[in-house]
Amino acid sequence: MKVDKNLEIVTGLNPIDAIIKKRPNSVIELYILSCKSNVRIKKLADLAKSKKIKTSFQNKEFFLKNLPKEVHQGAAILCKKRLEEKEPFLYEVMKRKKKKLFLVLDHVTDPHNVGACLRNASAAGVDAVIVPKNRACHLTAAARKVSCGGSELIPFVVVVNLVRTINFLKQNGVKVLGADKSSKASYDDTNLSGDVAFVIGSEERGLKLLTAKNCENLISIPMPGEIESLNLSVSSGILLFEYLRQNNKSKEENLIN
Amino acid sequence: MKVDKNLEIVTGLNPIDAIIKKRPNSVIELYILSCKSNVRIKKLADLAKSKKIKTSFQNKEFFLKNLPKEVHQGAAILCKKRLEEKEPFLYEVMKRKKKKLFLVLDHVTDPHNVGACLRNASAAGVDAVIVPKNRACHLTAAARKVSCGGSELIPFVVVVNLVRTINFLKQNGVKVLGADKSSKASYDDTNLSGDVAFVIGSEERGLKLLTAKNCENLISIPMPGEIESLNLSVSSGILLFEYLRQNNKSKEENLIN
Repeated sequence: MKVDKNLEIVTGLNPIDAIIKKRPNSVIELYILSCKSNVRIKKLADLAKSKKIKTSFQNKEFFLKNLPKEVHQGAAILCKKRLEEKEPFLYEVMKRKKKKLFLVLDHVTDPHNVGACLRNASAAGVDAVIVPKNRACHLTAAARKVSCGGSELIPFVVVVNLVRTINFLKQNGVKVLGADKSSKASYDDTNLSGDVAFVIGSEERGLKLLTAKNCENLISIPMPGEIESLNLSVSSGILLFEYLRQNNKSKEENLIN
Repeated sequence: MKVDKNLEIVTGLNPIDAIIKKRPNSVIELYILSCKSNVRIKKLADLAKSKKIKTSFQNKEFFLKNLPKEVHQGAAILCKKRLEEKEPFLYEVMKRKKKKLFLVLDHVTDPHNVGACLRNASAAGVDAVIVPKNRACHLTAAARKVSCGGSELIPFVVVVNLVRTINFLKQNGVKVLGADKSSKASYDDTNLSGDVAFVIGSEERGLKLLTAKNCENLISIPMPGEIESLNLSVSSGILLFEYLRQNNKSKEENLIN
């Protein structure tokens, strides 16, 4: 099967499920391995049917030929390529009234880390994940798979100049907080109410100097144990859920007062 | 090289560093690939020297022969096998005066998840990670590598009967809290002061029925986004650091009052 350059084949039951639910119109066809039958694949087929998506049963050869390198779990979809957003997308987000939350990945090149961060971002309901155009992992197949569908649900914004974007966020009233091990300001002593963007660097190098300089504040996660650093996705999870904790608390207080 | 059954060869710069620092007496020899020289290996050699550990330079053939399947980064150590602890270890921990924190993994079989949890546990300074003897991943090479040295720093306790251990912890005044998506009690509304054990199940199946039944309370991490579940290591990180947040706060309050 020759795939048009605007289309792609996606595997992984979670990503397929997320794509059919989130953007059913982008799905051309669902392929199911005919000898494979289990509850989750049956559910996918039902979901596709409810969205009026064409479903076809294919043999092993079809999967071997079209997805020679993939662990496909017996299902795949042909769909329009997942689009990365550009900077102007953020102008639109700024017009929204609700509180805004962003996750900025500063030159993170490991697809596992990017995928895991997308999963967290999706669970936390962030408004966008922002990455620079160069020297950074974008929406690769590996990152999408690790994200368990998160990559299909959260806007992924690729910007040409990260510092310019950080300044744009600040000008629009977003608190831009960089994660930096050496900072003495603990994340949980920092006021996270309102609009926030967390900026996280790669595990090896941390934030770039210029990125750190342009953040409003640098914050750290104090670790009493013997290991200095958490995995990047764990750090991002801790920060995003501390944001939710503080903002839910302030919502409750507003309701009481 | 024939390795005695009580010894093992460990690779990975982080695990080697952690082992030399934590249990230098267990290290027999440090091997360095002679053609490899970088700052981190130089640091390891200096560390070994300061601990009076024998260091030898070896050629590529030595590494190929003894570590054919490993990504060794140019260094390895021969050391006494990392010992897993047994239940009586917990009796000793209970005698300690300081606040106690445990992470219990309920039949988690994925070494990546176990390794990532060990890394979090080590960063958070838990007193022990507890796992059941059967149907669970123990300290495998993969888990140790993913833990970035955490596996060498944190006591890893393998128990025969997890429910019995949970009850032992409860009898000793430890709040045993099971992570369960369906619970309506939010983790951040739960009082985590004092001694706590978090019990986390596998990503696919969650807690076993009997495990959940024996926990004192079940708690959840509310997720406003579109994905239902976080990665297991991210969940454990969020819970462990919420424990630290609450207990640091109460420490501060005690100091003020």
